[in-house]
Amino acid sequence: MTENLLNELKNRLYEAADLGHAASVLNWDMSTYMPPKGAPQRGRAMATLNKLQHEKFTDPAVGNLLDQLETALGGRPAEDDAASLVRVTRREYDRAVKVPASLVGEISEVTSALYDAWTRARPANDFASLMPMLEKELDLFRQMANCFPGYQHISDPLINFSDYGMSAESIRSLFAELRAGLVPIVKAIAAAGGVDDSPLHQLYPEQEQESFGVEIIKDYGYDFERGRQDRTHHPFMTRFSGNDIRITTRFNENYLGDGLFSTLHEAGHALYEQGITPSFDGTPLGGGTSTGVHESQSRLWENIVGRSHGFWSRYYSQLQAIFPEQLNPVSLDEFYRAVNTSKPSLIRVDADEVTYNLHVMIRFDLELKLLEGSLAVKDLPEAWQSRYASDLGLTAPDDRDGVLQDVHWYAGIFGYFQGYALGNLMSAQFYDAALRANPSIPDEIAQGEFAGLRTWLTENIYQHGSKFTADELLHRVTGEGLGIKAWIKYIQGKYGGIYKL
Amino acid sequence: MTENLLNELKNRLYEAADLGHAASVLNWDMSTYMPPKGAPQRGRAMATLNKLQHEKFTDPAVGNLLDQLETALGGRPAEDDAASLVRVTRREYDRAVKVPASLVGEISEVTSALYDAWTRARPANDFASLMPMLEKELDLFRQMANCFPGYQHISDPLINFSDYGMSAESIRSLFAELRAGLVPIVKAIAAAGGVDDSPLHQLYPEQEQESFGVEIIKDYGYDFERGRQDRTHHPFMTRFSGNDIRITTRFNENYLGDGLFSTLHEAGHALYEQGITPSFDGTPLGGGTSTGVHESQSRLWENIVGRSHGFWSRYYSQLQAIFPEQLNPVSLDEFYRAVNTSKPSLIRVDADEVTYNLHVMIRFDLELKLLEGSLAVKDLPEAWQSRYASDLGLTAPDDRDGVLQDVHWYAGIFGYFQGYALGNLMSAQFYDAALRANPSIPDEIAQGEFAGLRTWLTENIYQHGSKFTADELLHRVTGEGLGIKAWIKYIQGKYGGIYKL
Repeated sequence: MTENLLNELKNRLYEAADLGHAASVLNWDMSTYMPPKGAPQRGRAMATLNKLQHEKFTDPAVGNLLDQLETALGGRPAEDDAASLVRVTRREYDRAVKVPASLVGEISEVTSALYDAWTRARPANDFASLMPMLEKELDLFRQMANCFPGYQHISDPLINFSDYGMSAESIRSLFAELRAGLVPIVKAIAAAGGVDDSPLHQLYPEQEQESFGVEIIKDYGYDFERGRQDRTHHPFMTRFSGNDIRITTRFNENYLGDGLFSTLHEAGHALYEQGITPSFDGTPLGGGTSTGVHESQSRLWENIVGRSHGFWSRYYSQLQAIFPEQLNPVSLDEFYRAVNTSKPSLIRVDADEVTYNLHVMIRFDLELKLLEGSLAVKDLPEAWQSRYASDLGLTAPDDRDGVLQDVHWYAGIFGYFQGYALGNLMSAQFYDAALRANPSIPDEIAQGEFAGLRTWLTENIYQHGSKFTADELLHRVTGEGLGIKAWIKYIQGKYGGIYKL
Repeated sequence: MTENLLNELKNRLYEAADLGHAASVLNWDMSTYMPPKGAPQRGRAMATLNKLQHEKFTDPAVGNLLDQLETALGGRPAEDDAASLVRVTRREYDRAVKVPASLVGEISEVTSALYDAWTRARPANDFASLMPMLEKELDLFRQMANCFPGYQHISDPLINFSDYGMSAESIRSLFAELRAGLVPIVKAIAAAGGVDDSPLHQLYPEQEQESFGVEIIKDYGYDFERGRQDRTHHPFMTRFSGNDIRITTRFNENYLGDGLFSTLHEAGHALYEQGITPSFDGTPLGGGTSTGVHESQSRLWENIVGRSHGFWSRYYSQLQAIFPEQLNPVSLDEFYRAVNTSKPSLIRVDADEVTYNLHVMIRFDLELKLLEGSLAVKDLPEAWQSRYASDLGLTAPDDRDGVLQDVHWYAGIFGYFQGYALGNLMSAQFYDAALRANPSIPDEIAQGEFAGLRTWLTENIYQHGSKFTADELLHRVTGEGLGIKAWIKYIQGKYGGIYKL
């Protein structure tokens, strides 16, 4: 009986997931291969799929099945797969039923058009052309937030979608603490004088960059039988199903860091998704549990692993063999310092580990103001510039490297940016726990052996999908909640060494 | 009032079309880029989309709107856009409501699995592994046919989906006539002795083949802003929307004919779709009217244009410049004869224009027998071989070049093969009509100017989409119905010259 109910629930969830699968493929195709004029009908098709997925997921029959299963599974422990499925589905269901399908469809349609316009507006440095659509989109996201009355800040419901349990207030207070710990380090690094990253700024042909990146992520354990890598303006990871988890990257022939670390970053996201228990596929358990935890994995594989001295002691000679002219004159230590240069910069995705969080805080604060209406869209470029001047001491030459640089607001991604900073903090907390369990991980990395780390992450984090919230996962895995200590210690140790602070 | 009803109808049709758009993207991705292990969930997602599309299209509200619109538009001429929309939608609606959505979903799911298995079974020469799934699929298509009781032959409903108005009986009688006209020509060519096609069988690097093909189809008028070309096992054209009509091709580095003529063939299909009135998009009018008419366009651009002497008098020096070593020793006339070699062969898609229809007839006859049950799946490979022996005097070394060569039966495409032969016949009928209207077309082709032909085809055929049936279109455009005369005359003229018959 309970089995029948569970199967009925799963079949309904699968149908919704199939529509999500399709919407994700359409979105991936829009970013990779779609011909230029295909956008309008594509946008409409994606809106239809998103609306239907929402309708399927919020069907009262789903609520009914959840009611019955909550009774039937009452005695099971919280970790039980079926109990977890019902608990997590209930949480998402109760949230989803508050949002009308028509709003979901409208957001999807406006977002596709805005994204398409952004791909043209960014190279043209034309923020003004996006303003009406961005205003419309903000209005729709305010409507979305207002489906959840009782919030403290209008961003809270959106933040909660990405990082369950967090709020504007809790993040503001965490960020204040983080900034207090971070600013002295940034200042000390600035005082210590520059590290030379010119080795990265040479001509690196794209094809060779790509081959090298692919080799590394294969070593990481990214399974190309269940994924692939393509090129997009803005790199991303996307899950169609447990057997089709794709990543994208981009290359800059004049800067090695862009493509290489984008590849490692997205592969980190993909390792998480590829490690989820296969039987969770097609249900709310079958995906990463929060933006923060997701970013902890992309940042861990990109930075803690991919910018470590051990990693490059293994791979640098291989990279030199591919680019002998560019790199034979550069020693391992010089290269290691180059990929760990820290200095204020304009572009978030190219930012170093130390200053990265400052970029995130700027976006987070501006987004809160946009949503609450205290900052008008037309004043956004100036507000952006003013924050970059005060926080990073820099002025972007134009909006391309300013407010137009990130896809998020133009792709309907709100309530999301904090996740990058939370991810940084968690990555250090998780990595510390991994080292406590298996102290030989750094030595293994220096041998190009990643199975030890990946297996630990899979057992402790990946396999669980969304079974545990970020907070539950942190407590289970590290014994404590989210905090800045581990990350500050990691940064102090690493950059203290590089900059001899 | 009528406008409101029309808009309501269109919005319902668009929703169904959006699901079709998504299903087509998923199918295209499955054939182009999907990682190997992605098939099972992809199959399920496609089945869900096909089922939902069917549900949306067969919603009683659609029938209701059609009822009202038939009354409201009663007085309009048959050519009126709105009247045509209602008439053609009614025809498809009445057909679709007879088929349960569950059967549509089941066919989609079995078909995806069978297609996936075929992509592995063909290189492994393992027909046996496909037998259970093929039997299952035949059974489902028999169920489909049985949704339309009263047919003369069980294939008739399936044929009618592809080539409205045709039947097993009418095609058999047409094929008998065609065979009678064709066999003497095949015999005369065989008696005349071979033409040397060895120039095509040299090493032609893929990249250069591709560039050359792309240049030609751009000249044809294929709009890459509304389409793109990728590579697949089996080339095809697919329409996602009026602004996204893609083609695929494949290359054989040791045989120039494969990639080049596949490209021209699929571009012909795409020119048809790209030429349809934009306002028909997302409705049953927005697509080619029948398999036969569609194939008439692919075959016209592939053969009547792409294998003509005039065409090569314009493009051959360009091809020589790309492949000087391979082609400088070969004269234009030698090359023209090489691409028009006629001799019995094993592979349909590589067959010459003369013998091509014999391949089609074999498949048509075998498929009828499979569906009626007079030929068992396990006996199919032998029946295939026996027909190739009797009709073409050839024996395939194994099933790879025999019963496994074509994707159709493994991709759920039944009632379709006759369309290739009907298309050949129609291509000559349409081309004759074009020449009567514009006798300078051959001279224009010899200058690489295709606008004259394309414009005539667009005005007379493409723009109408599915507004007219194949038979109506033939009568409008050529003044007569489907027949073999024009094609036999074309073949006699062309091959009479080449083989000096």
